[in-house]
Amino acid sequence: MSGNVFGKLFRVTTFGESHGVACGVVIDGCPAGLDVDVSDIQKELDRRRPGQSSITTARKEEDEAQILSGVFEGKATGTPIAIVVYNKGHKSGDYDNLKDVFRPGTADFSYFSKYGFRDHRGGGRASGRETLGRVAAGAVAKMILARRGISVIAHTKEVYGVKAEVFDESVIEKNPVRCADANAAVLMEKKIVRVSKSGDSVGGIVEIIVRNSITGLGEPVFDKLDALLSYGLMSIGAVKGVEVGDGFGVSQALGSFCNDEMYVDGGKLRHRTNHGGGIAGGISNGEDIVLRIAVKPTPSILKEQSTLDVSLNEKKIKIEGRHDPCICPRIVPVAEAMVALVLVDHMLRGKVARVDEL
Amino acid sequence: MSGNVFGKLFRVTTFGESHGVACGVVIDGCPAGLDVDVSDIQKELDRRRPGQSSITTARKEEDEAQILSGVFEGKATGTPIAIVVYNKGHKSGDYDNLKDVFRPGTADFSYFSKYGFRDHRGGGRASGRETLGRVAAGAVAKMILARRGISVIAHTKEVYGVKAEVFDESVIEKNPVRCADANAAVLMEKKIVRVSKSGDSVGGIVEIIVRNSITGLGEPVFDKLDALLSYGLMSIGAVKGVEVGDGFGVSQALGSFCNDEMYVDGGKLRHRTNHGGGIAGGISNGEDIVLRIAVKPTPSILKEQSTLDVSLNEKKIKIEGRHDPCICPRIVPVAEAMVALVLVDHMLRGKVARVDEL
Amino acid sequence: MSGNVFGKLFRVTTFGESHGVACGVVIDGCPAGLDVDVSDIQKELDRRRPGQSSITTARKEEDEAQILSGVFEGKATGTPIAIVVYNKGHKSGDYDNLKDVFRPGTADFSYFSKYGFRDHRGGGRASGRETLGRVAAGAVAKMILARRGISVIAHTKEVYGVKAEVFDESVIEKNPVRCADANAAVLMEKKIVRVSKSGDSVGGIVEIIVRNSITGLGEPVFDKLDALLSYGLMSIGAVKGVEVGDGFGVSQALGSFCNDEMYVDGGKLRHRTNHGGGIAGGISNGEDIVLRIAVKPTPSILKEQSTLDVSLNEKKIKIEGRHDPCICPRIVPVAEAMVALVLVDHMLRGKVARVDEL
Amino acid sequence: MSGNVFGKLFRVTTFGESHGVACGVVIDGCPAGLDVDVSDIQKELDRRRPGQSSITTARKEEDEAQILSGVFEGKATGTPIAIVVYNKGHKSGDYDNLKDVFRPGTADFSYFSKYGFRDHRGGGRASGRETLGRVAAGAVAKMILARRGISVIAHTKEVYGVKAEVFDESVIEKNPVRCADANAAVLMEKKIVRVSKSGDSVGGIVEIIVRNSITGLGEPVFDKLDALLSYGLMSIGAVKGVEVGDGFGVSQALGSFCNDEMYVDGGKLRHRTNHGGGIAGGISNGEDIVLRIAVKPTPSILKEQSTLDVSLNEKKIKIEGRHDPCICPRIVPVAEAMVALVLVDHMLRGKVARVDEL
Repeated sequence: MSGNVFGKLFRVTTFGESHGVACGVVIDGCPAGLDVDVSDIQKELDRRRPGQSSITTARKEEDEAQILSGVFEGKATGTPIAIVVYNKGHKSGDYDNLKDVFRPGTADFSYFSKYGFRDHRGGGRASGRETLGRVAAGAVAKMILARRGISVIAHTKEVYGVKAEVFDESVIEKNPVRCADANAAVLMEKKIVRVSKSGDSVGGIVEIIVRNSITGLGEPVFDKLDALLSYGLMSIGAVKGVEVGDGFGVSQALGSFCNDEMYVDGGKLRHRTNHGGGIAGGISNGEDIVLRIAVKPTPSILKEQSTLDVSLNEKKIKIEGRHDPCICPRIVPVAEAMVALVLVDHMLRGKVARVDEL
Repeated sequence: MSGNVFGKLFRVTTFGESHGVACGVVIDGCPAGLDVDVSDIQKELDRRRPGQSSITTARKEEDEAQILSGVFEGKATGTPIAIVVYNKGHKSGDYDNLKDVFRPGTADFSYFSKYGFRDHRGGGRASGRETLGRVAAGAVAKMILARRGISVIAHTKEVYGVKAEVFDESVIEKNPVRCADANAAVLMEKKIVRVSKSGDSVGGIVEIIVRNSITGLGEPVFDKLDALLSYGLMSIGAVKGVEVGDGFGVSQALGSFCNDEMYVDGGKLRHRTNHGGGIAGGISNGEDIVLRIAVKPTPSILKEQSTLDVSLNEKKIKIEGRHDPCICPRIVPVAEAMVALVLVDHMLRGKVARVDEL
Repeated sequence: MSGNVFGKLFRVTTFGESHGVACGVVIDGCPAGLDVDVSDIQKELDRRRPGQSSITTARKEEDEAQILSGVFEGKATGTPIAIVVYNKGHKSGDYDNLKDVFRPGTADFSYFSKYGFRDHRGGGRASGRETLGRVAAGAVAKMILARRGISVIAHTKEVYGVKAEVFDESVIEKNPVRCADANAAVLMEKKIVRVSKSGDSVGGIVEIIVRNSITGLGEPVFDKLDALLSYGLMSIGAVKGVEVGDGFGVSQALGSFCNDEMYVDGGKLRHRTNHGGGIAGGISNGEDIVLRIAVKPTPSILKEQSTLDVSLNEKKIKIEGRHDPCICPRIVPVAEAMVALVLVDHMLRGKVARVDEL
Repeated sequence: MSGNVFGKLFRVTTFGESHGVACGVVIDGCPAGLDVDVSDIQKELDRRRPGQSSITTARKEEDEAQILSGVFEGKATGTPIAIVVYNKGHKSGDYDNLKDVFRPGTADFSYFSKYGFRDHRGGGRASGRETLGRVAAGAVAKMILARRGISVIAHTKEVYGVKAEVFDESVIEKNPVRCADANAAVLMEKKIVRVSKSGDSVGGIVEIIVRNSITGLGEPVFDKLDALLSYGLMSIGAVKGVEVGDGFGVSQALGSFCNDEMYVDGGKLRHRTNHGGGIAGGISNGEDIVLRIAVKPTPSILKEQSTLDVSLNEKKIKIEGRHDPCICPRIVPVAEAMVALVLVDHMLRGKVARVDEL
């Protein structure tokens, strides 16, 4: 059954495989009147593009967004916005030697077992290239959030044991790791380069912060804000864990510590601490929303590995090609996109919460 | 907007507040012919009931499940199965002193800010009592899984720093903490009792394991199996984090370590390790599915806390009543239920994956 | 797969069989703050109750609505509203002789072929009793519409060739046929009684009018207002056709006749005619919405009929019991309910149409 | 809110405006392994293309379908199938004089009132060109139906009072009206040409027949087969009514007449008549499914009409351009597409009806 639609009111359908004709997205439910400039979408796509630095894959992708519908004279019309990015310069032939082999740690076997065959070219739909549509839609979602002053900022918090110790937003986009700690960024980069040279890859942690959050986002009991954020973030290929606020830290904490004390600041209810990560009972409480995701090391590595082919014969493989030794920096814009999509969907859903506002 | 429906094909709608008339669930999409015995549902409800031991709340809830529809002569008819549990012996008056006060760490303020007012009686819809419907539906889902030999087992893995070191499934239901390590269980219980006496509460970690999993569950790209499991688990009140397989551990690992090596065992593809937690590319690969959730300490504590009332005046409160000092053991059946719901939904969705099977 | 949920934002799940324990509904998405009085729901249920006159079945159903959740101190809290009606005084034994026989014109065979067995007691889920949940939810929807001054009025327009010639709203609820033409009502009743005595039943047409409609309801391209109204109305058991405005009459008309001319009345855009039935391009244009549905004769008749049993043996049957010889008057409140549900859903959806209103 | 997604398991999202960059569709949920040939899609698109005869608009649209994703080596992979048709040779300038005027009988005013502005170029999203995506998706749905031997055939049954008296399937595609009665077709064409010359347009009735239907399609109680067929058909621009089987004729019939008698034919349950149109209780009973839709006259006519502009000033307009004087023949492939989409969706949903088949 269909699993490529995300969101209820701001409904996003993505399509496309790594070596197909094109990738893209249809946004159904973008409110009319929004100013939509293709260059704002392009800017986000450029952030996820490979080949940006020494630690991302040197593959050259020219990902040019084109808006096919839904925008007239620079404004969203309320009809579906289709955005397409054609795949250029992809040589499927590169993957012919992997045609019948299951690459370890990838979706190769699971797709094969589910569908009976698979598009073996570079991961097909399971490729990271699938996120193009997410990022394009996320760019539109960010435009809606921006109208309320809400921003979503992600950064690489940890790489293979190296942790960011300070948070300086201004440096995130200035280092190839997208780390908010300039010093840690240098160490992270060194570690990634070293591991990469040994033919291996490393994992890390990406943190996402929502600034100028508003209260009331989230729908009990299943569609809690944190539940849908987890859904969205966990749907990104390499993510193996999601936490909000203190996250797994709560397992070692007391209730008296975790409860965020309320106080009044300028006539407004605020919280002295933010252990809850801006969400209480599944509904945003106005504080910054703070999330972290665990990002596994890229499974495609140069090192020789044992595996099986579709006939269950043992094989040895080395995955040539150019793969990111650490995917964290390129997950940053994707994670922002998913968070933006969830926030906008909940913002729209929140519009019908009270009968007095109908 | 409505957020109380979970699942696409096995669609579950829950209803009910802690001090309303009744709690319950409607299951829409249960396949016809399933043997449904109300006693199997009751058994699961009894597991989540309070008052089971010294470390769970001493409140007495007589939660008796009644099937209102969808079952005829012991079999599901394919029509909606409605299950209701009436609320008995709840004195709303107990909560009158909390009427206008926001209890710290709860959904009080966020509900108020969203809806403009709230049902102040014991948490209303945000109460743990809401999970009755989930557990009842989960019991039905488990019956479907059982037909394929699939079982879902949860246990308390960690409480306030005390970790289970061994996994002995047979002891889980024999200690009040629902821990699979009998020795750790004793330490955990002691710790909980001590903290409880000081008027405080503690958090922990619950692990969920799916035995005899099958391949092919999960729908790329958004409705990945782990994405929907995260959605379901994170929607449980006290959960602040979810991880699958190595989870946050991947942040310190190499790709060569995380990639689960495939081999052939009895003509079947298996994996030598299970770092991926039974899921690859969002689709189950046949290995045990392993998940962990971070459970925060119960926010309702006896210790005096500072807070605000609805007029933003400062208040001091002590939350009397009987609340679980550690909610982990009672989250165990709820977590199992959510995992069972997601698995069944994906099992149904998987039935239409291949055109050859139509 | 589940088919018992209706609506996207005002989401209604019904449950219950004619001879099960109870029928009911869960409304997920009712905006908080709505005044909900169970007596308003009861009033609508009473309108669909059998035994109201000589031309409706003499069965006595005591359909008492009970609200289980979602309403606190007389107001909707924004959480699911569950409403239940217990089935009383139904003797399943009455149907034992029909256990293995497919009643002609009913869902007996189609349910059997789909599910492999069926609840044979009085139609089970396919019984008209299923509409209890619809009417209860529709009563709540009407309360929301009433806040905007919108009302939904249905009436029997035609019965077995006898047509209403005038429309006098005040007489609808005063005659057993629910006809807006007092004279035609007398003729209709006579005809129904005569046919009934011969052991047969008759069909008719019910018209639904939405007064004080507003502009902007409806979502292109699939979720047009008329498309969802057709969906909702056609989902009522006996309905075999739906039309809006001139309906099938357009097949004999010219474009110059069908185009409703616009003019200005009191500074407001109005239309001189209403051939479109208040909807243009799938969106309401502010004029009265006018729909008609074709209602087939009740299939359960006393006359002897030939049919088959589950083993495909030929059988002769006479369906005893008390069945409505003309179901139109009892469909009136059900049709109103379905229209109200669609309107409210679209009203909510319309709240997120423009970015300026977020 | 989003209204451009149709179907639950075979989920179709269309996009595109008449004068935008492109129209298209994303199909999410096409079962893997289906043979998909773009030429089969093109063939259906060609059937709906304008400029095919004297009675369809002389506009020249080169509607060339391109598959962007979801098909690999001629087979559906189980991932979303995106199909796009670029808009060529459309001069938006043609519509500048209509920029601020509401064309009578169209969606101009209703879109304006809903969204605050509109894409005035040729109807924008409300244009018939929107159906390109439906027809492309319907072509894929037909491929799935064909595997089971099921076919969907539509034909023009009536035009401005002229009725087809015989049904000869072989002539449908051989006359410009797509009428199954060669003689009536000649009369219909004459009538259309005559009316067209007078600057006017005419309505008609299109009938859709499903051959080799199977039992068990349809999901009670809301998602009845006829309910979703009505939803899909009524969502086509010009449709003002839908009926199944005897449709509105039941209003003048007796129960004993409408009940289709069952008998055994070759060991299979069959019905002697088909008043129900192949559907009983919302579930297909194996007989041909028969539906009819009322198609209104094209609102865009040459005749001078009175109307208003966006400032509510009175205007006189004549709509130049080339519009179909009778849209029936071009609705034929669109109606087939909508029926095929609903059938496939229900076929997939039916796969999870019984627990024994899981």
